[in-house]
Amino acid sequence: MVDQVVTYLQQHQDTYIEQLKEFLRMPSVSTDSSHHQDVRNTAEFVANFLSNAGFKKVEVQETEGHPLIFAEWLEAGTNAPTVLFYGHYDVQPPDPLDQWKSQPFEPDIRDGRLYARGASDDKGQVFMHLAVFDAFFKTTGELPLNVKVCIEGEEEIGSANLYQLLESKKEQFQADFAVISDSGMVANDQPTILYGLKGFTGLEFTLKGPDNDLHSGMYGGAVRNPAMAMAHLLSTMKSEDEVVQIDGFYDQVEPLEDDERQLIQSAPGEDYSTSTGAPEAVSEKGYTAKEHTMARPTLEINGLYSGYQGEGTKTIIPSTATAKLTCRLVPGQDPQDIQDLVVQHIENHLPAGVTLSIKREPLSAKAYRVDPNHPFITKAAESLQETFAKDPVFVRMGGSIPVVEWMDSLFDIPVVLLGFGTPDDRLHSPNESFPLDHLTKGMETIVHYWSKVRSV
Amino acid sequence: MVDQVVTYLQQHQDTYIEQLKEFLRMPSVSTDSSHHQDVRNTAEFVANFLSNAGFKKVEVQETEGHPLIFAEWLEAGTNAPTVLFYGHYDVQPPDPLDQWKSQPFEPDIRDGRLYARGASDDKGQVFMHLAVFDAFFKTTGELPLNVKVCIEGEEEIGSANLYQLLESKKEQFQADFAVISDSGMVANDQPTILYGLKGFTGLEFTLKGPDNDLHSGMYGGAVRNPAMAMAHLLSTMKSEDEVVQIDGFYDQVEPLEDDERQLIQSAPGEDYSTSTGAPEAVSEKGYTAKEHTMARPTLEINGLYSGYQGEGTKTIIPSTATAKLTCRLVPGQDPQDIQDLVVQHIENHLPAGVTLSIKREPLSAKAYRVDPNHPFITKAAESLQETFAKDPVFVRMGGSIPVVEWMDSLFDIPVVLLGFGTPDDRLHSPNESFPLDHLTKGMETIVHYWSKVRSV
Repeated sequence: MVDQVVTYLQQHQDTYIEQLKEFLRMPSVSTDSSHHQDVRNTAEFVANFLSNAGFKKVEVQETEGHPLIFAEWLEAGTNAPTVLFYGHYDVQPPDPLDQWKSQPFEPDIRDGRLYARGASDDKGQVFMHLAVFDAFFKTTGELPLNVKVCIEGEEEIGSANLYQLLESKKEQFQADFAVISDSGMVANDQPTILYGLKGFTGLEFTLKGPDNDLHSGMYGGAVRNPAMAMAHLLSTMKSEDEVVQIDGFYDQVEPLEDDERQLIQSAPGEDYSTSTGAPEAVSEKGYTAKEHTMARPTLEINGLYSGYQGEGTKTIIPSTATAKLTCRLVPGQDPQDIQDLVVQHIENHLPAGVTLSIKREPLSAKAYRVDPNHPFITKAAESLQETFAKDPVFVRMGGSIPVVEWMDSLFDIPVVLLGFGTPDDRLHSPNESFPLDHLTKGMETIVHYWSKVRSV
Repeated sequence: MVDQVVTYLQQHQDTYIEQLKEFLRMPSVSTDSSHHQDVRNTAEFVANFLSNAGFKKVEVQETEGHPLIFAEWLEAGTNAPTVLFYGHYDVQPPDPLDQWKSQPFEPDIRDGRLYARGASDDKGQVFMHLAVFDAFFKTTGELPLNVKVCIEGEEEIGSANLYQLLESKKEQFQADFAVISDSGMVANDQPTILYGLKGFTGLEFTLKGPDNDLHSGMYGGAVRNPAMAMAHLLSTMKSEDEVVQIDGFYDQVEPLEDDERQLIQSAPGEDYSTSTGAPEAVSEKGYTAKEHTMARPTLEINGLYSGYQGEGTKTIIPSTATAKLTCRLVPGQDPQDIQDLVVQHIENHLPAGVTLSIKREPLSAKAYRVDPNHPFITKAAESLQETFAKDPVFVRMGGSIPVVEWMDSLFDIPVVLLGFGTPDDRLHSPNESFPLDHLTKGMETIVHYWSKVRSV
């Protein structure tokens, strides 16, 4: 069966690439209201493709924003598991346009790569799944497992309506596991299993001293300088050896076990100084930089401002100082609890002579981690190994994908992050692209995977 | 003699006010090249006035910028002292124009105040001296002491060419003491002797981590966050009780003696919380806020910036963080030495993982302090007391007036800061004004003063 489907995909490769190009030509920029109709057309393209492939039930589900496409095929029997496949058909704006070598919505193949906005994120990766479903139906008349498809049109604008929709239709979307192909490999041709993501929480706060900027000569020595108060306050949050000093910050962190440290150790590393240009890598005391980025929580200042920022000197005492912070969280940490701890810390360490106002960032996410030895994961690893002829590496990532946490928390199911992107894809940037050989190998991997997991 | 001159001034008050209005009508905005000719015309107005008053030697001294007016009358004999009177005839730009109730260059008298750009800073105060010289000549045919007049046209643009000019013509400008009327009283009708000013030195420095802003999820935990490094570094500079922690910062500070603390204590104070809107006043441990602002050195952050400053969240690790600092200095502290100490402190406390670049502010000034018991000062106090019928208060100011330091360092003479402005004058702002009774009382004070100091 597998060979038959893979052969079909190879024989029809040109057709599939033409269909993907059609998909990429549609400027489904979700954030831009002038593309409203384009986004809807794209949703309909997806719905039609799924119908034509063989899904009997395909729904365009309306939201307060852009529609979500739902499809299901549940005829594999109760012995076979049910997968919820998630992807998104909307894309980032293409700006700045003048930096594109070919038009963002006119797909172009150069040097084995397909260039277009969405080529990797996420139309290209969604299309691999669409093609594989199609090839299964066309060759075998069925799918090897029960499938629910959920392809939304608002991922690039924070999946504004997704959680509510999933929650209100929990039964409809319930499955045994979820698969998302919206991420990448650590290197070209290096199959990668992403088994963990960080959560996050954030806030911004302002220290106010005098009502207006003051003459630093007339008032220097009589009022607290909010910028200096801010420095004192921020410096209490993290030690110079990168350990967060907020009471309770690490209390609920699941310890990093030896076997996982070995797994992280074995993942290909990055010389952080070379890749970022920073004079040296630093990391939390007791952990390597790789462990810290993948599996330990962080607290970062994202923005800091106070007083005069122009050229030269302006001898003022600023009226206010503001800092923006986010914490990246690991399993065990509750975003709300951590936000509370940060607020408490700020309140407890507030210097005299300034008043405090805090804006809590409403968006947050829990961390996600799936057991790397879970059968749904090991089957994915086997499929990657067979297709790429190379053992996959297992990594956790410091980034956050809210939808992953939602699937975890709403459906209590493992989420398999089966990403085929590469570090060179230039997501969200001009000249986004996707390697054609990852497209074909990705499809082959998925064929293997569906066949393998039917018996899990 | 005094009565005669004061009577003359009173009798000719209307004429003098008309002449002052003519002076104020001239838009001598030194920073605006479109007013180039206006500035020159104003210089000539001053020169003509001095000639007509009775100065035999009047020079329009050219600089690379706007001209300086020099005049002298040295016929009071060698027993009488020589004063160097300094003022400036240029003004700040009048913007924003729409906030003026009457036109900035069309003087208007309302409620006992003369409204116009320069009414207080410094044309109004310069003119008091011009009128007094004129009245002495007209009534007595002479001045009570030897006088050198120096009225520049570039004060509002940093006195760009003054130091060089004074230095190159040291003999010509040399005097026994200097008088400047370019400051104010602590309250309306409260005669004030300003016997000290702070110096200053400044710098800005940048901490650089990665070459670009980084994704805080991908790299959080692997590189130093420059904003946090900045917080750590800045927090080492000043304790929470407002004591500067830079090695050697206080080493050369002349101690504040008990009699001066009493003098400061007796000066009218300001509830710094009320006047600034800050939640409370703070000051250096061991000193009151009044002592700290007047007579103790300070270190202030004037500007601080790093990373994202827009609305909401951007989850980045900033590439750089920058701080702008100035120190206000007291007698004994050398600006260059202090700048060096700050640089040294920054270098010694530089966190790992960031590189440092420093921009030293080239402009600096030494602090200035004259002995409040110096005869040139006590005579000024007596003159104020006689005219205002109120004991003057003695204050030091946290601000810096570079020309004061230059006169001190070039000529080694006491500088008497005899300011008649009031806190309501709105210098540099729309609706600048000067109270007419301060104009007449100011002239009377000056008449008394010249007569008293002739015998010092």
